Amino acid sequence: MPDQVRIAVFGASGYTGAELLRLLAGHPSGTVTAVTAGERAGQRVGDVYPHLVPYADRELEPIDAGMSGRADVAFLALPHGTSSTIAPSLLDAGLRVVDLGGDFRLPADAYPRWYGFEHPAPEWLGKAVYGLPELFGAEVVSADLVANPGCYPTAAALALSPLLRDEMLRPDGIVIDAKSGVSGAGAKPTTTVHYAHTEGSVRPYRVGSHQHTPEIELVLDRASGTATSVTFVPHLVPAVRGVLVTCYGRLADAATLEQLHGALASAYRGAPFVRVLPAGEMPDAKRVSGANVCEIGVGLDTRTNTAVVAAGVDNLVKGAAGQAIQNMNLMFGLDETAGLPTIGVYP
Amino acid sequence: MPDQVRIAVFGASGYTGAELLRLLAGHPSGTVTAVTAGERAGQRVGDVYPHLVPYADRELEPIDAGMSGRADVAFLALPHGTSSTIAPSLLDAGLRVVDLGGDFRLPADAYPRWYGFEHPAPEWLGKAVYGLPELFGAEVVSADLVANPGCYPTAAALALSPLLRDEMLRPDGIVIDAKSGVSGAGAKPTTTVHYAHTEGSVRPYRVGSHQHTPEIELVLDRASGTATSVTFVPHLVPAVRGVLVTCYGRLADAATLEQLHGALASAYRGAPFVRVLPAGEMPDAKRVSGANVCEIGVGLDTRTNTAVVAAGVDNLVKGAAGQAIQNMNLMFGLDETAGLPTIGVYP
Amino acid sequence: MPDQVRIAVFGASGYTGAELLRLLAGHPSGTVTAVTAGERAGQRVGDVYPHLVPYADRELEPIDAGMSGRADVAFLALPHGTSSTIAPSLLDAGLRVVDLGGDFRLPADAYPRWYGFEHPAPEWLGKAVYGLPELFGAEVVSADLVANPGCYPTAAALALSPLLRDEMLRPDGIVIDAKSGVSGAGAKPTTTVHYAHTEGSVRPYRVGSHQHTPEIELVLDRASGTATSVTFVPHLVPAVRGVLVTCYGRLADAATLEQLHGALASAYRGAPFVRVLPAGEMPDAKRVSGANVCEIGVGLDTRTNTAVVAAGVDNLVKGAAGQAIQNMNLMFGLDETAGLPTIGVYP
Amino acid sequence: MPDQVRIAVFGASGYTGAELLRLLAGHPSGTVTAVTAGERAGQRVGDVYPHLVPYADRELEPIDAGMSGRADVAFLALPHGTSSTIAPSLLDAGLRVVDLGGDFRLPADAYPRWYGFEHPAPEWLGKAVYGLPELFGAEVVSADLVANPGCYPTAAALALSPLLRDEMLRPDGIVIDAKSGVSGAGAKPTTTVHYAHTEGSVRPYRVGSHQHTPEIELVLDRASGTATSVTFVPHLVPAVRGVLVTCYGRLADAATLEQLHGALASAYRGAPFVRVLPAGEMPDAKRVSGANVCEIGVGLDTRTNTAVVAAGVDNLVKGAAGQAIQNMNLMFGLDETAGLPTIGVYP
Repeated sequence: MPDQVRIAVFGASGYTGAELLRLLAGHPSGTVTAVTAGERAGQRVGDVYPHLVPYADRELEPIDAGMSGRADVAFLALPHGTSSTIAPSLLDAGLRVVDLGGDFRLPADAYPRWYGFEHPAPEWLGKAVYGLPELFGAEVVSADLVANPGCYPTAAALALSPLLRDEMLRPDGIVIDAKSGVSGAGAKPTTTVHYAHTEGSVRPYRVGSHQHTPEIELVLDRASGTATSVTFVPHLVPAVRGVLVTCYGRLADAATLEQLHGALASAYRGAPFVRVLPAGEMPDAKRVSGANVCEIGVGLDTRTNTAVVAAGVDNLVKGAAGQAIQNMNLMFGLDETAGLPTIGVYP
Repeated sequence: MPDQVRIAVFGASGYTGAELLRLLAGHPSGTVTAVTAGERAGQRVGDVYPHLVPYADRELEPIDAGMSGRADVAFLALPHGTSSTIAPSLLDAGLRVVDLGGDFRLPADAYPRWYGFEHPAPEWLGKAVYGLPELFGAEVVSADLVANPGCYPTAAALALSPLLRDEMLRPDGIVIDAKSGVSGAGAKPTTTVHYAHTEGSVRPYRVGSHQHTPEIELVLDRASGTATSVTFVPHLVPAVRGVLVTCYGRLADAATLEQLHGALASAYRGAPFVRVLPAGEMPDAKRVSGANVCEIGVGLDTRTNTAVVAAGVDNLVKGAAGQAIQNMNLMFGLDETAGLPTIGVYP
Repeated sequence: MPDQVRIAVFGASGYTGAELLRLLAGHPSGTVTAVTAGERAGQRVGDVYPHLVPYADRELEPIDAGMSGRADVAFLALPHGTSSTIAPSLLDAGLRVVDLGGDFRLPADAYPRWYGFEHPAPEWLGKAVYGLPELFGAEVVSADLVANPGCYPTAAALALSPLLRDEMLRPDGIVIDAKSGVSGAGAKPTTTVHYAHTEGSVRPYRVGSHQHTPEIELVLDRASGTATSVTFVPHLVPAVRGVLVTCYGRLADAATLEQLHGALASAYRGAPFVRVLPAGEMPDAKRVSGANVCEIGVGLDTRTNTAVVAAGVDNLVKGAAGQAIQNMNLMFGLDETAGLPTIGVYP
Repeated sequence: MPDQVRIAVFGASGYTGAELLRLLAGHPSGTVTAVTAGERAGQRVGDVYPHLVPYADRELEPIDAGMSGRADVAFLALPHGTSSTIAPSLLDAGLRVVDLGGDFRLPADAYPRWYGFEHPAPEWLGKAVYGLPELFGAEVVSADLVANPGCYPTAAALALSPLLRDEMLRPDGIVIDAKSGVSGAGAKPTTTVHYAHTEGSVRPYRVGSHQHTPEIELVLDRASGTATSVTFVPHLVPAVRGVLVTCYGRLADAATLEQLHGALASAYRGAPFVRVLPAGEMPDAKRVSGANVCEIGVGLDTRTNTAVVAAGVDNLVKGAAGQAIQNMNLMFGLDETAGLPTIGVYP
C-alpha cells in the first residue's frame, strides 16, 4: 500500500494514544506502523486495552525506539516535558511530528512558569505550527512540527475567536469557566479520579494556574490583534469524555444576539467539524462524544451586555486525537475529514 | 408533647418535600402533623417515597386542606405561583409560613418578567423576611412569613456577601457560573432529566433569564450597599444533589488571597453551617451531600486581579429543606442546629 | 447510485431508530430514503436528535406512509404490537423487513401471555427468520422477514448456545441474571429512568414475567435439541448503553474451564462480531460501547460444578440496530461487516 | 461523661473507618477516644476526610498504639490479615472488639484457601461471635469479640435464612448474583476503580473464588440445619454505595409467592433495620443509602419453581459500619437503634 501514510503512535498506553489507535483503525489512508509506551513497553496493546482488538498483538516499543524509515509521521501523546526531548530526533530522521502535549505551544520563557521545566529544544518552538485547523489550517499544510492544541484551548478559541476578530467583544475581562470529564486527567489511577470521589462531585481545580491559560490567551491575541486577558478556571465533573467551556465576554459595542450568532455562523460556514447551533441554543458535549466535532452556542445577557459563548468537544477526539488526525490529513494532502467521525455516540 | 412545634408539609410528593420529611423525622422538637400534595393527594407517603418509612401510612391531603389549629408552621414546597395563593389563608389562620418556592423573594414588579405571573398577594411581599440565617437571622426570629432562599442564591450570597460588604470586590461585572445536579429540576420526569440524556452531559440552560438572577442581585445589593450587576448562567451536570457556584469578581483595590480568605473566615466564624476552607482550597458539593452545610473556598487570579469564590451546597438541604428547618428553629426559639446534620454522606 | 440498498427507518424518534441512522450514515452500500415516526411525525430529525447532523432536515413521515418503490428494506423500530400491523403491507409492497421489536420472534400463542396482545398477522410468524447471524445466518440470507433478536436474548444465546449444543451444560435449571443500561427502557421520560432515581441504583424488574424469557428459551432449545428451562431476571443499572448477562448452568458431565472455553472459542472462530475472552476473564459491556460486538467470558465454580458464562453487548448496537444492519448485509449479499464498527468507544 | 462508651476506631483512613466516624458523631452514648491509621498515621483526620469536621484536628495514631484504659471497645476496619494480629492484645487489655474485616468469620482451615494466610490467632476463632444481630443478636450481647459480617453475606443471609430455616428452599443449587458499588473495593486508587473505567461498566469479578462465599454458606448452613451449596458471583457496578444481591433458590415443595413473603415478613416483624417489601416488589439499594437498613423483596418464577429473593444494603452502613455500631449497642446494653439512621438519603 504505497499510498498509505505510515504512522508511529508514541504513548499508546494513555487514553489519547488509545483514541488515536481507535480512530486510525478506520482511516483509509493511514497505517499504524509502530506503537510505543513508557512503563508498559514490552507489553502488547491488548494487555492494556482489550477493546483495541485490531492491535491486540502489537508489542509496545520503548519511547526512544528509532523510527527512521519506519514512519512518515509521529503522534506524540506523551507526558509534558517528554515530547520536547524526543521530537527533535524524529524530525531529524525525516518524520513529521504532531505533538499532542503542551511542549510546543508556548514561547520558551513561558515553560518554567506554566509547565515547571526549562524547554530543552527552544530552537524548534519558532518552527512549530499551532494546529487548530479551523483557524490556522493554511499553516498546518506545510508544517513539519505541529503543536496540537489542548482540549480547553480548542473549545475556547473556536468559541471566541470570530467574535474577537470582528471586534464584537472587549479583549479584557474575559472569563472562561470550563468543565471536563475525568479522562482529561489521564489513565493513571489517583484519589482524584477514584469513582467514589467523582460520582456526584463538581470541583474547581488549579484556579489561576492552569497551563492552558497562556495558550488560550495566545490564540485569542491572534484573533483580536491585541493583548487579551482571560480568567480561566477548569472544573472536574462526573463524566468520562467531554469538555464544555462557558465563555463570558463583554460587548465592545451594542450588538444583538443575532449579530453575535451571525459572526459565528459565518466564520464556520463549510467547516466540517464545527457546528454552530441556532441563536440562543446551548451545546452539550455529550452530543459529540466519540466525534471530531466542536458544538458552539451563543447567548446574550442583555441586562449586563455580556455574551455567553459555550463550546463542547470530546476532549479525546476534537480536543486531542481527532484533531491530530485532522492535522495529519492536512499535512499529507489528504481529505481533511478522512477517517474522522462526525456523529457522536448518543445517547 | 406540648413542646413540639406542629408542622405541616405542603408538597410532600416533590423532592424538597420528601427531604423535609427525612430531616424532620429526626428533629427533637418538631412533629409533622399534616402532609399535602397536588396530583398525588389521596395516596400514602409510602406509595410515593418508600424510603420514608416512618411516614409510610400517612395520607397526602389536598393542598387546600385547612390547617387551623392543626399546625404551628407550614412549609410550602410547591410550584412557583402556588405558594402565594395559599400562604395568605394559612397566615390568617395563625400559622407561620416558610415558603421554599420563589413567591415571596422579589418585589411585586419582578414577578411578571422573571416568573411569568402577576403576584396575587403583593401586600405580603413587604412582610416576608428573606430567610438566609447567616445574613439575616435576626429578622427571621420574629418573622411570620419567611421566603426561604433558592439554592443558587444561597450559595452565591454566602460566597460573595462578605467580600462585597468589605468593599473588596467591585459590585459590577460579577460572573456567576453555576452547576447543579438534576434533583434541582424536580421530580417530574422529562426528557431533560432522562438518565440517558444526563449521564456524561454538561449543559448551560436559561442563559440570561433564570429567575434566580434578580434574587442574587437583591441580596448582593444589601451586602454591598449599592447596585450590583451579575451575569448568571446555570448548568445541569450529571449529579443528583449538589450545587456548586463559581463566582468571579474583580478586586476593588489590591488585595491578597490571605486578605480575601480572612474576610470570609471572619464573617463565618462560629457559623455552624458555613465552612470556609483554607485559602486556595476549593469546595466540593459532594462533601456536603445530605448535610445542611455550605462549603466555601476562595482563590485569586493575580494576573487579572479576579477573585474566584466557589461555594457548594446540597440543593435539597442547605439549598432548600435544611435551611427551611434552620429558619423554623430560629422562628420558634429552638437551637438553630436542632435536627440538622452537619456531616455529609461521603463518599 | 444503483448499487445502494434503499432503506426506510420506521420509528426514528426512538433510541434504536436514532442508532440505525447513526450507523447507516457510514454504510458504504446503504442509503436511507425514508424516516418515519409516531407522535413526532412532521418534525425534522434535527429537532429530535441534534447529533444526527446529516439527517437534520429530513422530515419524519407518519409510520403508515407508503414505501412502495421508495425502499428495498424497512427497519421497524416500533413499539411492541405495532410492527405486526405494519409489516404485512410493506412485505406485500415488495420490501424486505427487519423487525427490531418482538412481534415476530415467538409463536402466536405466546403473544397474549408475554406481550399482552393477540397477534394480528400470525400467518407471517412461520415465515419470519430469527436474525441472530452467528447462529442462523444461513437462513437470514434468503429471508424476506427477519425478527431481529432482543438485546438480552442476543447476549444470552451467544453465551450459552455452544455449551448447550455440545451438551456440556444441563438444559434445565439455567439462571440468567441480566443487567441493562436505561437506554433499553426507551426514550420516553418516566420516573423509572429519571436521573435522580437511577444514579446509584440497581433494581431487578419484571421478575418471572419479562417477555424475553420465552425468546431465550426458544433459541436455547434449538441449540440443545431439547426443552431448556431458564429463570431470567433483568436489572436496571446506572448506565446508558450496555447489557451484561451472567448465565449460570450446571455441568452435564465433568468438564474443565479449558474445555468450556474451548467450546466457545471454537464456535466463534472467525466470527467478526463475537470476541471470546481468555479462559477465566470476564467481559465488560463498556468495552463494546458503540460497536457491533458481543464479548464473552467463561468461568467455572468448581465447588458447585457450575459454569458462569457472561456476555456483554451494546444494547443499541449488537443488541438492536447494529445486528439489524448485519442482517441487512446478509440479506442483500453485502459484506457482513459493512458499515459496522468493531472497536468500542472506550473509556 | 461516665455513661459514654469509649471507642477506638482502627483504620480511620479507609471508607469504613470514615463511615464509623460519621455515624458515631451522632451517637448519644458513644465517644470516639482514639483513631488510628496505617500509612497515614501522623496526619489529621481532616487531612484525609475534610467532611469529618468534628474530627478535623484529631491525629491518626499508628495501628499498634496501646489502648489500655483509653477505650472500652475497638472497631477494627483494617485490611484482611491485620485485625487478627492486633485483636488479641486489645482483648487482653480488656477491650471488647468488633472486627469489620474477615479475620474472625471462618474456621482456621479456611483462611489459607480463601484469604491467602495462615490464621495467626486461631484460639480466638472459637470465641468470636458472628455479628448479624437479626439472626444471632442473643450471642452478640455477651461477646467480647464480634466478627462483623461482610456486606454480601449480610444481604444474602438476611434474604435467604428465613426461607431455608422454614425449609421452603432446597439447600443446594443456590445462585447468588451480587452487584456492588465501588466503595466496597476500598479507598486505594487503582485502575479498576478509575472513574473512566467504571462509568457505564458492569463487570463480574472473582468468579468462584470470592472470600465471602464460605462465609455465606456458613450462615446459611446454620439457617437450614444442613450443608448448603452456593454459587456466588459479585459484580462491580457504577455506584459508590450500595450492594444488591439477587438470590435464586429452588422451592423445596410447592409454595406461593404469598407464603414465601409471609415467611420473610414474619421473620423480621419488629426488626428495626430490616424492611420486607410487599410481595413481588423488588428492593433498591439506593433507597437505603446512608441508612442502617436492609431492604428485602421476594418474587417467584412459577415456570421454574424458583424463588428470587433480592436484598439491598448500603455496604458502608448495614454492610459494615452501621452494623458494627448495632453490635456495639447490643454488647453494651444500649438501645439497639442508638445513633443509627433508618431513612436513606434519597434520591
